[in-house]
Amino acid sequence: MGDHRRVPARTDFTFWWPVTVRWGDMDALGHVNNTLYLQYVESARVGFLERVGWGVEAFAATRQGPAVVSQTFHYRRQVVYPATLEVGLRCGEIRHRSFDLECAIFRTGTDILVGNGNTVLAWTDLSAGRAVEIPAAVRSLLAAPGTA
Amino acid sequence: MGDHRRVPARTDFTFWWPVTVRWGDMDALGHVNNTLYLQYVESARVGFLERVGWGVEAFAATRQGPAVVSQTFHYRRQVVYPATLEVGLRCGEIRHRSFDLECAIFRTGTDILVGNGNTVLAWTDLSAGRAVEIPAAVRSLLAAPGTA
Amino acid sequence: MGDHRRVPARTDFTFWWPVTVRWGDMDALGHVNNTLYLQYVESARVGFLERVGWGVEAFAATRQGPAVVSQTFHYRRQVVYPATLEVGLRCGEIRHRSFDLECAIFRTGTDILVGNGNTVLAWTDLSAGRAVEIPAAVRSLLAAPGTA
Amino acid sequence: MGDHRRVPARTDFTFWWPVTVRWGDMDALGHVNNTLYLQYVESARVGFLERVGWGVEAFAATRQGPAVVSQTFHYRRQVVYPATLEVGLRCGEIRHRSFDLECAIFRTGTDILVGNGNTVLAWTDLSAGRAVEIPAAVRSLLAAPGTA
Repeated sequence: MGDHRRVPARTDFTFWWPVTVRWGDMDALGHVNNTLYLQYVESARVGFLERVGWGVEAFAATRQGPAVVSQTFHYRRQVVYPATLEVGLRCGEIRHRSFDLECAIFRTGTDILVGNGNTVLAWTDLSAGRAVEIPAAVRSLLAAPGTA
Repeated sequence: MGDHRRVPARTDFTFWWPVTVRWGDMDALGHVNNTLYLQYVESARVGFLERVGWGVEAFAATRQGPAVVSQTFHYRRQVVYPATLEVGLRCGEIRHRSFDLECAIFRTGTDILVGNGNTVLAWTDLSAGRAVEIPAAVRSLLAAPGTA
Repeated sequence: MGDHRRVPARTDFTFWWPVTVRWGDMDALGHVNNTLYLQYVESARVGFLERVGWGVEAFAATRQGPAVVSQTFHYRRQVVYPATLEVGLRCGEIRHRSFDLECAIFRTGTDILVGNGNTVLAWTDLSAGRAVEIPAAVRSLLAAPGTA
Repeated sequence: MGDHRRVPARTDFTFWWPVTVRWGDMDALGHVNNTLYLQYVESARVGFLERVGWGVEAFAATRQGPAVVSQTFHYRRQVVYPATLEVGLRCGEIRHRSFDLECAIFRTGTDILVGNGNTVLAWTDLSAGRAVEIPAAVRSLLAAPGTA
């Protein structure tokens, strides 16, 4: 992908996470609120990190893990309840202390793209409050979560 | 500003919106969840649009108004309850059917930057489901909400 | 059931709604926030109302439908992500202009009760802002949604 | 108060907490979602507990504190953004291991009651996962937070 302004395809993604839209996810405009798209991506990210061996227990135990440094999201379509969605993720560029997690939300089982974006995550030592080197064991899994 | 990766200063912003962090805004990591930063920006944006004559009533009455097309946000600092914040906004580039709304969140009355970003808004006809020309009356106010 | 302080059993309920807990449903105490239990019940209630012919379209079209007058909820167990739950509902007492919707949340496929309660709903004319008679067609379905 | 079905008055409450309604607190029906009323009460409760010496640090440090066992809430009026509210609290009955926290939400500076209810809190040892005796120092403050 690289350029997340490009419209992604399903085949760009290697990890998938299902989301069921809740009625309460809608706002006063009668569609899913734009902050909720990012909660859906968060849900998928937590699942992805579990897959690469860095689930909530690892995070709590080591007080170390990926923290969101920045994110960009392109809203492509409104979503109205009821709906089921799938969030696709794939690891983009991996740097020393940070990596890109590219995402796209599709309607379940379709090519209908609801939105897509990128999240930059820094591997952070929560106690020290600063970014540290991504563990080698994680680094290899980030690139290939599907085989983990 | 232009380049939102640059660290903004308070003097870059012309419209301010206060936010009181709620205990419930925090997530299981014990800090304000990253989707909430965008709810704070949304709150400010609704206030800003009211100021330029496009409040919730105008939106409902005309079924026309700005819809979020994309957003980018840079998380600079964690926020832990209790805290009070200020969201600064300023209109960036204004195009035919869309404009940029640059934002930054500071701790109240300080230069401590919590995060900043940019939201691209398309002037949308909700019934037609497509972007339309920004009304001229709005266009001039976007550039100078402080004088509205 | 009648007395909602009594611990309910799965067999008390005639309508079921699945809920997948999201990581973001947890609060700073590291468990699902107590307001979210009520969002899960809301999700089930919306599904139940759809079943009895009063889905979101009917509500919007008629500007009439059930509004929450009061609710009581007993928190029985903490829930920590990841978890899947099932909300059971059954209509309790039906009055002229209001009815009780009894609810219980179980861990999926088990008798582990997470919480239970009751919601009083008044059939409301949103335009007039007051309770009106429950439509006869709805009244019979409320008692037996499983057969709808 | 005692009977929380009775309509309370401002003079019933000894502790007050301000809440600014956010646009995003509204749901697809265009009013503040009913789960949010309980988040407002939660916000007030956290402030109240801080006042009686059991703030978030005490909770985290001792792994002990009040947990919500049940709550009842009566929705009296819709709330539409923009609005500012005040949550009034007062401690009701205090038992060995639990107490009642009665609440009411008013529009700021008015007698307009938006809703009211009661929360039962059990003093809980989070590690042991069971209710324990309310500390004596807390017990006396619960009855008179205004003088703390």
